[in-house]
Order: sequence, then structure tokens, then C-alpha cells
Amino acid sequence: MPDENAVKAALKDQRIETPSWAYGNSGTRFKVFPQPGVPRNPYEKLEDAARVHAHTGVAPSVALHIPWDRVDDYAALADHATELGLRVGAINPNVFQDDDYMLGSVCNPDPAVREKAVAQILDCVDIMDRTGSEILSLWFADGTNYPGQDSLAARQERLSEALDTIYRRLGEHQRMLLEYKFFEPAFYATDVPDWGTSFAHCTDLGPRARVLVDTGHHAPGTNIEFIVATLLRRSKLGGFHFNSRFYADDDLMVGAADPFQLFRIMHEIVRAGALEHGAGIAFMLDQCHNIEPKIPAMIRSVLNVQEATAKALLVDDEALTAAQRAGDVLGANEVLMDAYNCDVRPLLREVRREMGVEPDPSAAYRASGHQEKLAAERQGGQQAGWGA
Amino acid sequence: MPDENAVKAALKDQRIETPSWAYGNSGTRFKVFPQPGVPRNPYEKLEDAARVHAHTGVAPSVALHIPWDRVDDYAALADHATELGLRVGAINPNVFQDDDYMLGSVCNPDPAVREKAVAQILDCVDIMDRTGSEILSLWFADGTNYPGQDSLAARQERLSEALDTIYRRLGEHQRMLLEYKFFEPAFYATDVPDWGTSFAHCTDLGPRARVLVDTGHHAPGTNIEFIVATLLRRSKLGGFHFNSRFYADDDLMVGAADPFQLFRIMHEIVRAGALEHGAGIAFMLDQCHNIEPKIPAMIRSVLNVQEATAKALLVDDEALTAAQRAGDVLGANEVLMDAYNCDVRPLLREVRREMGVEPDPSAAYRASGHQEKLAAERQGGQQAGWGA
Amino acid sequence: MPDENAVKAALKDQRIETPSWAYGNSGTRFKVFPQPGVPRNPYEKLEDAARVHAHTGVAPSVALHIPWDRVDDYAALADHATELGLRVGAINPNVFQDDDYMLGSVCNPDPAVREKAVAQILDCVDIMDRTGSEILSLWFADGTNYPGQDSLAARQERLSEALDTIYRRLGEHQRMLLEYKFFEPAFYATDVPDWGTSFAHCTDLGPRARVLVDTGHHAPGTNIEFIVATLLRRSKLGGFHFNSRFYADDDLMVGAADPFQLFRIMHEIVRAGALEHGAGIAFMLDQCHNIEPKIPAMIRSVLNVQEATAKALLVDDEALTAAQRAGDVLGANEVLMDAYNCDVRPLLREVRREMGVEPDPSAAYRASGHQEKLAAERQGGQQAGWGA
Amino acid sequence: MPDENAVKAALKDQRIETPSWAYGNSGTRFKVFPQPGVPRNPYEKLEDAARVHAHTGVAPSVALHIPWDRVDDYAALADHATELGLRVGAINPNVFQDDDYMLGSVCNPDPAVREKAVAQILDCVDIMDRTGSEILSLWFADGTNYPGQDSLAARQERLSEALDTIYRRLGEHQRMLLEYKFFEPAFYATDVPDWGTSFAHCTDLGPRARVLVDTGHHAPGTNIEFIVATLLRRSKLGGFHFNSRFYADDDLMVGAADPFQLFRIMHEIVRAGALEHGAGIAFMLDQCHNIEPKIPAMIRSVLNVQEATAKALLVDDEALTAAQRAGDVLGANEVLMDAYNCDVRPLLREVRREMGVEPDPSAAYRASGHQEKLAAERQGGQQAGWGA
Repeated sequence: MPDENAVKAALKDQRIETPSWAYGNSGTRFKVFPQPGVPRNPYEKLEDAARVHAHTGVAPSVALHIPWDRVDDYAALADHATELGLRVGAINPNVFQDDDYMLGSVCNPDPAVREKAVAQILDCVDIMDRTGSEILSLWFADGTNYPGQDSLAARQERLSEALDTIYRRLGEHQRMLLEYKFFEPAFYATDVPDWGTSFAHCTDLGPRARVLVDTGHHAPGTNIEFIVATLLRRSKLGGFHFNSRFYADDDLMVGAADPFQLFRIMHEIVRAGALEHGAGIAFMLDQCHNIEPKIPAMIRSVLNVQEATAKALLVDDEALTAAQRAGDVLGANEVLMDAYNCDVRPLLREVRREMGVEPDPSAAYRASGHQEKLAAERQGGQQAGWGA
Repeated sequence: MPDENAVKAALKDQRIETPSWAYGNSGTRFKVFPQPGVPRNPYEKLEDAARVHAHTGVAPSVALHIPWDRVDDYAALADHATELGLRVGAINPNVFQDDDYMLGSVCNPDPAVREKAVAQILDCVDIMDRTGSEILSLWFADGTNYPGQDSLAARQERLSEALDTIYRRLGEHQRMLLEYKFFEPAFYATDVPDWGTSFAHCTDLGPRARVLVDTGHHAPGTNIEFIVATLLRRSKLGGFHFNSRFYADDDLMVGAADPFQLFRIMHEIVRAGALEHGAGIAFMLDQCHNIEPKIPAMIRSVLNVQEATAKALLVDDEALTAAQRAGDVLGANEVLMDAYNCDVRPLLREVRREMGVEPDPSAAYRASGHQEKLAAERQGGQQAGWGA
Repeated sequence: MPDENAVKAALKDQRIETPSWAYGNSGTRFKVFPQPGVPRNPYEKLEDAARVHAHTGVAPSVALHIPWDRVDDYAALADHATELGLRVGAINPNVFQDDDYMLGSVCNPDPAVREKAVAQILDCVDIMDRTGSEILSLWFADGTNYPGQDSLAARQERLSEALDTIYRRLGEHQRMLLEYKFFEPAFYATDVPDWGTSFAHCTDLGPRARVLVDTGHHAPGTNIEFIVATLLRRSKLGGFHFNSRFYADDDLMVGAADPFQLFRIMHEIVRAGALEHGAGIAFMLDQCHNIEPKIPAMIRSVLNVQEATAKALLVDDEALTAAQRAGDVLGANEVLMDAYNCDVRPLLREVRREMGVEPDPSAAYRASGHQEKLAAERQGGQQAGWGA
Repeated sequence: MPDENAVKAALKDQRIETPSWAYGNSGTRFKVFPQPGVPRNPYEKLEDAARVHAHTGVAPSVALHIPWDRVDDYAALADHATELGLRVGAINPNVFQDDDYMLGSVCNPDPAVREKAVAQILDCVDIMDRTGSEILSLWFADGTNYPGQDSLAARQERLSEALDTIYRRLGEHQRMLLEYKFFEPAFYATDVPDWGTSFAHCTDLGPRARVLVDTGHHAPGTNIEFIVATLLRRSKLGGFHFNSRFYADDDLMVGAADPFQLFRIMHEIVRAGALEHGAGIAFMLDQCHNIEPKIPAMIRSVLNVQEATAKALLVDDEALTAAQRAGDVLGANEVLMDAYNCDVRPLLREVRREMGVEPDPSAAYRASGHQEKLAAERQGGQQAGWGA
């Protein structure tokens, strides 16, 4: 049986990064519903992230999206983060919203557009230098909508060239994560549609390039924990964009759609020893709180990851291995389910008390009146969203 | 073997409705790429639709989306349509973009929002009266994103009440079509997710309520032609929103993703005699030309429906029935494929010549310089899109 | 908050039917792996079912599959059941394994085959009369593999005729459940592919015809609890074939693939008051234990349904309704999740103790040595399987 | 525009391998329907394959499945093939039907089972030596049905070890193809579920290990031609198992479910020059003719591949490239569709006449009376199927 102190220590050590953009407004192509109290600039986004960290104790870093989080002085932004008890996490270059990216960025048939995109990403490495960020998190909206629209093979060549240029620019302590996505916004072929494509490119590049798994970016039915286990075995898992989905890239709160899947993913992580900071896996949230208030949704998401992790840590590894080796199908499954069926909320309340944060972060946030305060204070200005 | 004159007559009789909103800008949640020459108001959208009709000869009606096509004087708009050789087709009430529709319209837990939505739809029936439209085309973005968010059953009750009020308002020559959609923008439960739900409500209402099949609104792998055949058999097919998709509701040009599927759908239509105007089936396009120019994409879409229809008309029904009755699996399939494998473009060129339109509408439009003219002329103003 | 005594009472009242065929060997098209101790005839299957009931206390009825469970004297079989403390549950006619069913049974293009199939099903109603079974559970393997192979509409007509004949034969206390299935064994079109088709036929027939929901028979991503809620609202839910799946109709142990989904389904059941026996919903298991021992897998499956039910009973309905009416997305979801996150195993152990069965049925079965005993005793003879 | 003579030459050069097992009976887990005239041994299967080659002129090799095609004297079998104008193609070891493979073959937790499986595969390399086969075609039914059943990572290790042993045994002119499959017969995790996993292992092994793409083995919505283009670019495409599907691994006749997809795949092949024999791509059929007669279904399948290839060869590559480089979305798509919309049957009839085979192979076979002859002659004995 897992040692309770070791479980608690692991839970106290866990770090979950929240994304600046999830504090702004988001929506679907049909409508973005604005919410009261939404931040108007990157500084206010950091303040919201700090609030999530204050309530959970395990979310001390924030991912930025450039240009959504463009500021004049990135050192000042990083200082603001430090003052709030945060640090800047991954930098996510956005190369899909300029008008000339209509047919793609680094895979665009037009070399001038490709150059522009690469330059924009290299600028993001500069921002990494200035903010102390160690992760360049790449996702390309590139792809085609119609068969024949462009050469699938030529687009891979262009992608490969761009990645090569970017990789060579990275500093010693910087890593590149390459995210894949099944579809959307491209509807026929996406240029990095699956883990295999990302893996192949990362292998071409070298050890500081790794695959980023967004849990909402797979074909229906895909066994995500298999991918996680496979990449871990090959030292090519870079990290996660956590969220959940019932259909496509729904970007719901992680653990909301299929909490058992999240547990199975964390089980592979725990089993491979990849929860340790030394493993260098980035656990990041990437969500869209379209209809729910953002800060409490983020708090809830952090809790959901913690609960899945706690259950994964409670798996009796010895018993599991014994049953697996014996070919005891029901027995091995039962060991896993025994951990999943535990109610880990009491344990996590204890962990939080020992960490000096409120045992029930959701209730504490609700009781704080902070949400109402933000709504009252953040009047005027332009609310942040995917476009700004 | 089908009689060539009958085939040609059927092709000349076919009518395909284009949607006003497809002439405006559209996109994904990531970005709407503006295109040169896009219309700035409903009048200009009608002009674009007229151009599609001029080139194809089979697209004389235009569906409107309210409030996207809101004007002060709907009679004037209908007159403009008449002058252009068009008529107003289906009216599509939009009850998903006001801020208070965040949790739904007619299924919203708040009765005031429900009342507002019903009133907005009843206004659309007024617009039908004033424009001569005979079809009220209902699609609800209603649904929930999280399990437990709302009562699935209560939402059905609310939906039922609203539909009942609306149905009773319809005039003798007006019909209501109820569209279903698998998911998006709701990500946990959609209130009319499948044909069964729409069918059950339409059956509750009466003969002037029928199911609208949008070809992009199904779960992966769904056999759409089965649904078409089933609804036709039960006199509950109201019409189509044609488009195509590889993944979700991609809204690509109809026939672009799976032309064989479109043929199979049209085969069920032809076999049931539902191509005849008397059958009252509305053949409407509903697409988003996110990255391709809109008018030529619409022309191409009309041609794709025509080609699928022509092939369906070429099926040797007698031979097919004989093979089916004999249980000749390969033989029956071969009869169907023989029609599908035909190149019907020469036949359609002939049909067009006989109708007095250019035999190759795409080439004719390209050669006309119209696209460039629009780009030059339609400067200034606010381009139409999903928000306006 | 739910009253604990009421929760316990509901759990004691719950009844889950096990299927005779799950005690025999099963497999995939690639291989059926035989297991030691598998029953050799319907009598031995009943004995295995009795063992499951002895350990769980809530599985007192057994579904039969005809001809797999064909015996000379059905009254004797029913008596055997009574002696074992069981009763005969649903009768499942199998009209898919005779050679002349290659192109279908009641939808076959050949009228002679259709007549044979109907006669075989009518024989099953006789068996119902003789065994006291009240449920005729219909699933048709009918469908087509290739486009054009047969007329989709004609097959619906044939289905409708057959169902009508069968329905009229049913006695006052007998019901017909019509199961739907997305695909398999037919690969192009299945004749009852979705709940809408089953619902429409059941509505045609009358109040004693209802829809059977097999949890593994849906398109990827389908929201099953929506279907459950919709059918309950229309008094057309007849019951379940419980099992779980990751991909297609995997027929794994219920709750094994997505325990949260099972909970959501049971939540709709509980909320609609459909757990009460008066509601007439049949809760049946339908699984294939291809690689795990069958009796303990069945025990585990019963426990999984109980656990999901217990959690559903723990939902604070008052708080949920209040949050739903207030449009509190996070709050409502949290009420639901609070129940799901409970560990209900202690409660169920208590319930079992009060019912006089062992608190941990899986462990008790394992400790009993029964599995080894069966393996030793059931030597020789022909093991039961899908073919016999 | 493509040169007609070049197109015809390419079509005459094309080679499509048929699988011995498709001439035997097959079915679903529900039922295998026997068909009249089915071969009773490997020799008769070769005779059926020879008949397909006689009618099409492009199917001169036959894949074998061991032990389904086990004979005492493989040299004699190869001689029989030569006499029939055939040669032995890929050898497919079957390591999924012995009782001890219940929990897997090369990934089994039991080392003795793994050793047995490897030995069985090494025997198949001996058979390759004796029959002149150059391709070892590996598919593993390995996987797990329940979460926790076995360690995903450990299974990868075992797989890797086994592949390494096998690879080292291959002769200079022999290749190993590693097939992946999304699911079935395993229902939770398959040990080689996707192209990425196969690619990674093949890369570990070396240049004579390549990925085998079975067109029915993907998650819903997967863009197969993207995988083909990606593997071609990386010199890791080994070949195809062609078939078609609407849902899962339906194993229908290739081109029957989505002929446009087959065309898009062949377009990538043609564009990469991979139709040339020097490219070393194996074009193999792998189908199950569950309800249709096998020889004519195989003929039809060969024709379907030819038709898709002919259309792919007719793509105006120059115009396509120009439109792609210009970012002309509609124009580029139109070039592709122009080829797809051609009726290539007249061209193929001409090709066949020039090759000295009947222009319409399906009609010629039907007229030959061969099917009836086989049914009359092949009486008695045990029909071949998946089990023998």
C-alpha cells in the first residue's frame, strides 16, 4: 500500500500551470458571451492567476499567449508576476490571427508569410529570455480545408524547416513543446494532427523538443494514456494542456467530462515517476470557460487534477504489478478501481491545511466575495479575449 | 434504364436555395478572415445570390437569418428580391447571440429569456407574412456544457411549450422545420441533438412541423441516407441544410468531403419521388466559406448538388429493384455504382444550354471578372458576417 | 440532503437481471477463448446466475436467449429457476444464426425467410407463457453491408409488418422491448440503428412496446443519458442492456470504461423516479466476458451498477434544482460531482449486511473456491457459447 | 495534362496482391455464413486467386496466413502458385488463435507465451525462404480489455524485444511490415494502435522495417492520406491492406464505402512516385466477403483500386501545383475533382484489351459460369475459414 506521507508529499510538490487566456472571455464561433469582472490586460490576468494560486497553493506559474499578452515591457510583466508570487511559464506564440495567416503560418505556400511567422516565434524566444520562461509551446492552426488545396508533403517540408530554425535559436535551458491537434480550425488536413507527427518532428530536432499532449485534441475513442505511456517510455513527453471534452476540442474544465480518463492518465504519470519535477513534464491547463465564471472554474480545474493525482498515488503498485504479471485480469483492474473509487477529498483537505491554504478552495473563494468585487471594480476598458 | 429526357427535365426542375449568410464573412472561434468584396447589407447579399442564380439557373430563392438580415422594410427587401429574379426562402430566427441567451433561448431556465426568444421567433413569422416566405427554419443553440448544469427533462418541457406556441401562430401555407444538431455550441447536451428528438417534437405538433436534416450535424459514422429514407417514409422530412464535413460541423462546400454520401442521399430522395416540388422538401445550402471566395464556392456547391442528383437520376431503378429482391448483393451494389461512376458533367452542360445558362458556370463566373469588380466596388462600410 | 434510510431502501429494492449467455464462452470474430468451468447447458447457466444472486442479493432473474437456451421442457427450466431462488426474465429471440438469415430476418427480401423469423419469435412468446416471462426483448441483426444492396425503405416496411404481427400476439402482462444498434453485424445500414427508429416503431405499435437502450450501441460521443431522459419523459423507456465500451460494442463489464457515464444515466433514472418497480424499467446486463472469468465478472458488474445507483441516490436534489433554476453552472455541476466523488462502498457494505449477504461479494466469491470447484466438476460435454 | 500513354503504362504496371484468406469463409462474432464453392485448402485458394488474376491481369501474387495456410511442403505450394501464373506474396503469421494467446502473444505477461509467439513468427521467415516471399507482414491482436489489466509500458518493452529478434532474422531481401490497428480484438488498449507506434518501432529497427497501413484500422475521421504522405516523405511506408469501412474494421470491399478517400490515397501515392515498383510499396487487399461471393468481390475490389489509380493518374499535376502555390483554394480543389469526376471505365477497358484480358472482368466472370462450377465441384471436405 502506498505510504500516506509519500502521497501527501507528492501532492504538495505538484505544480499546475494556469493559462492567462482562460481568464479572458472565450466562446464558440457562434458567440462569445462577455462576463463581468474579466481582466482588461495581462497584468490583471496575472492577478487572477495569483488568486487561483492563493487558494490552491499549487498553481504558481502562468502561461502567456503572444500577442494576446503583448506588453511593452516584458521584464516589468515578469516583475509583476514575482510580486504576486508567480512566475511566467510557457510562452505560446499565436500565429493564426493575422489576416495573412488565412492559408497557414509556417506551412503557408507563400514564403513571405512563413518568414513572418518564424520571425514572430523567434520574438517569443526573446520574450522567454526576458521573462525567464523555459518553455516555448508551439501550436499551429495550419492545415487545409479542401482536398487538393495544398500539397500535404510540401507543407511537412515547410514545417520541418521552420521548426529547425526555431529549435536552433533556443537557449540551453529552454525547451520546445510541439502540440498536435486532430482538427479545427482546419477541416480537411491539419499539419500536425497526431502525436506521431509531433513525435517524428521532435525526434528530428533533438532532445529539447518534445511532444505536448492536449487532452482535447484527439480522434474520438483515442486512448490518451497509451500515448502518454509511449512518449514517457521514449523520453518524448513534454507536457500537457489539460481540459476535457465530450465531442471535439470542447475545452471544458479538466476532469469534467471523463474523470476516470484523467485518473488513468495520471496513473501512467505516477507509475513512470514523471510527477517528479526532474522529469520535466509541464502540467498546464488550457481551457475555455465560455459560460462559467473563470476564476472559480480554474480553481475547480486545479482541484480536479489534484483529485485524479491523489487517486493515482493511492494505487497499490505492488498489488497491481503482481496481478498484472499473473495475468489476473479482474484482480489487476480491481486494484486500479479500488484507488479510483476512493474519496480523496478528505486527504486533500488535510494536505491543504498542512500547506497553509484553506481546505476547501472553492468554498473559500465563493465566501471571499472576490468575484463580486472584480465585477464591481473592473468597469470600463476592453475585456480581454482571444482577440486581444 | 432511365429516360434521358425525364432525367433532364428533373434536373431543370430542381431548385436549390442559397443562404444569405454564406455570402458574408465566417470563420472559426480562432479567427474570421475577412474577404474582399463581401456584401455589407442584406440587399447586397441578395445581389450575390442573384448572381449564383444567373449562372446556375436553379437557385432562385434565398434563406434569411434574422437579425443578421434585419431591415426596416421587409416588403422592400422582398421587392428587391423579385427585381433580381429571386424570392425569399426560409426565415431562420437567430436566438443565440444576445447576451441573455448564454444558458439557452427557449430552453433557458429563466422564463423571461424564454419569453423573449419566443417573441423573437414570432416576429420572424411576421416577417414571413411580409416577405411571402413559407418556411420557418428553427435551429436552437440551446444545451448545456456540464453534467448537472440543468435538468435535461425540464429543458425538453420548455422546448415543447415554446414549439407549441410558435406552431399555433403559423399560417395555413407556412411550415416549421426543426433542425437537430449533435453538438456545438453546447458541449455536454444539446436540446435537439438528433433526428429522433426533432421527429418526436414534430409528431407532437402536427403535419406542418417537419424535420430539417443538416448534413453536418451528426455523430461520426451516422448513416444519413437512412434517416432521410426513414423520415420520407413517415412524411416527416422537411428539407436539408446541405454542406459537408470531415470531422464535426465543418460547413464545407456540399459534396466536397464525401461526394458518394451526397449521391446516396439524393438516391433516397429520387427513389421516394421527393425531388418533385409537390413533395415539399426544401433543398437548402448552409455553408461557411471561411477561406474560399463565397460566390464561386456557392456556384460550385450548387453544381455539386446537381451532379449528385444527376447520378441519382441515372440509377437503373428496375435493375436495382430486381437485384435487391433477388438478394444479389454484388449485383445491386453494382447497379448503384454504375450510376455513381458516370461522368455527368456533359449531361449537365447540355441541360444548362437548354435552360439558357452557360454550360460551365464556374468558368463563366471566373471569366466574368465579377469577383474583382465586387472587390473594387464594395469598399467601406461594415462587411456582413455572423454578427451582423 | 437525501435521507440515508431512503437511499438504503432504494438500494435494497433494486433488481438487476443477468443474461444466461454471459455465463457461456464468448469472443470476437478472431477467436473465442474457452474458459474452465463454463456451463454446458441452460440449467448450469441458471446455477451460475443463482450464484451471482446469492452473493449480491439483487440479481434474482435471468434473461434467456433462444435457441441458445432451447430446452425440451420450459416449464421444467422455470421450475429449476424457482428452486434456485430465481425467475426467468426477458426472452431474447435469436434470428441471426440460421444460414438463411444471411441477408436478414424480418427485413429479409425473401418473404419466406421473414415468415420463418416471425414464427420463431412467436414461438418465443409461447416460451414466455410457459416460463412466466413478461418481456420479449427484440434485437435484429438485420441490415445491409453495401449501398444499394437492398431498399432501406422497403426494409422498414417489412420490419413494421413483422413487429405488428408480433405485438398483437402479446398477452396483457407481456411487453415488447425493441433494441437499437448503431452497427455490427451490418456494416452499411442497420435496420434499427438508433433510438429514434425504435421509438417511432414502438409509438406505431402501442403502449406495451418500448425502447431498449443497450449502452454499447451508440455512435461515438452520443449522450446516452439524454436519450434516457427523453424516453422517460415520453414513457417509452423499456429498459437497459448494460455493458461498457471504449470503441464500438465492446460488451465489457458495465461501468468499466466510463463509470461517470453510468452514474449520469442512473441519475436520470433516479430523478425521474424510474428506479421504482412500478415504472417498469428492466435493468439487465448484456456483456461478454471474453478474457475474464464470468461469474466474478458478473458479480463485479452488479456491484458497479449498485455503486452508480448509490451515488445517484446521494445527489442532493433540492440543492441541484435550486442551482439549476438559478443558472449557477458551476454550482449545479458541483452538486452532481459531490455525489459522484463519494466513496459509496462502505454504504453498500452496510446495505448488504442488512440484507444478509456478505458485505464484499467479490472477495467472498473469491474466497469460496467456487470457481475452482466448477472448473474441476464441469469436465466433458460441450461448453455453452454464442453458437449453442 | 497527363500523357495518356504514360497513364496506360502505369495502369498496366500496377500490381495488387490478393489475400488467400479472403477466398475462405468469414463473418462477424455473430455468425460466419458459409458460401457454396469455397476452397477447402491452400491449393484451392491459390486457384481462386489465379482466377482473379486471369480476369484482371494485375493480381499475380497471393498473401498467405500461417497457420491458416499451413501445408507440409511449402516449396510444393510455391510450385503450385508458379504453375498457376502466381507467386507467393506476403507471409502473415497468425499469433492470436492458440488458447494461450488469450492475453496476447509477443506482449503477453508470460515469457513462455512470448517465446512461443516469436518462434512461430521465425518459422514464418523460414516459410518465406522456402516460398520466395519477401514480405513478413506482422499484425498483433495484442492488447488489453480493462484499465490496469497490464502495464502499457511493459507491453511496449516486450514488443520491442520481440520485434528486434525477428528483425535480426530477416534476410537481405526480406522486409518486415508492422501493421497498426485502432482496436479489436482488444477493447481498452491495443499494443500497436496507430501509425505513430508502428513508425517509432520501425525506426528503432532499421530500414527494412516499415509501416503497413490497413485502411480500416483508424479512429473515426482519421485522414489516412495524410499518414500516407507523411510516411512516404520519411521512407517508412511499407504497403497497404486495402479494404473499406463505414464504422470500424468492417473489411468491406475497398472503395465501397468511400471511393473518394481511396482516390485521395492513390493521389498521394502517384504524386510521390510510389506507384513505381522500385518504391517497394506493397498494394495488398485484406477483406472479408461475409455475404457476397468471394471471387467476384475480389475482382470488383481490384477494379476499384484500378479506377482510383486511373483517376489519380489523370490529375493535372502541373495545374494542381500552380494553383496550390498561388493559394487558389477553389482552383486547386477543382483540379483534383476534375480528375475524380472522370469516368475512367472506358480507359481501363482499353488498357485491359491492350493487356489481353477481357475489358469487363466482372461481366466476363459472371458469364463464365465458374462460380456455379465451383459450387458444384467443391462438395465435401472442410471449407476454409478464419479458423483453418
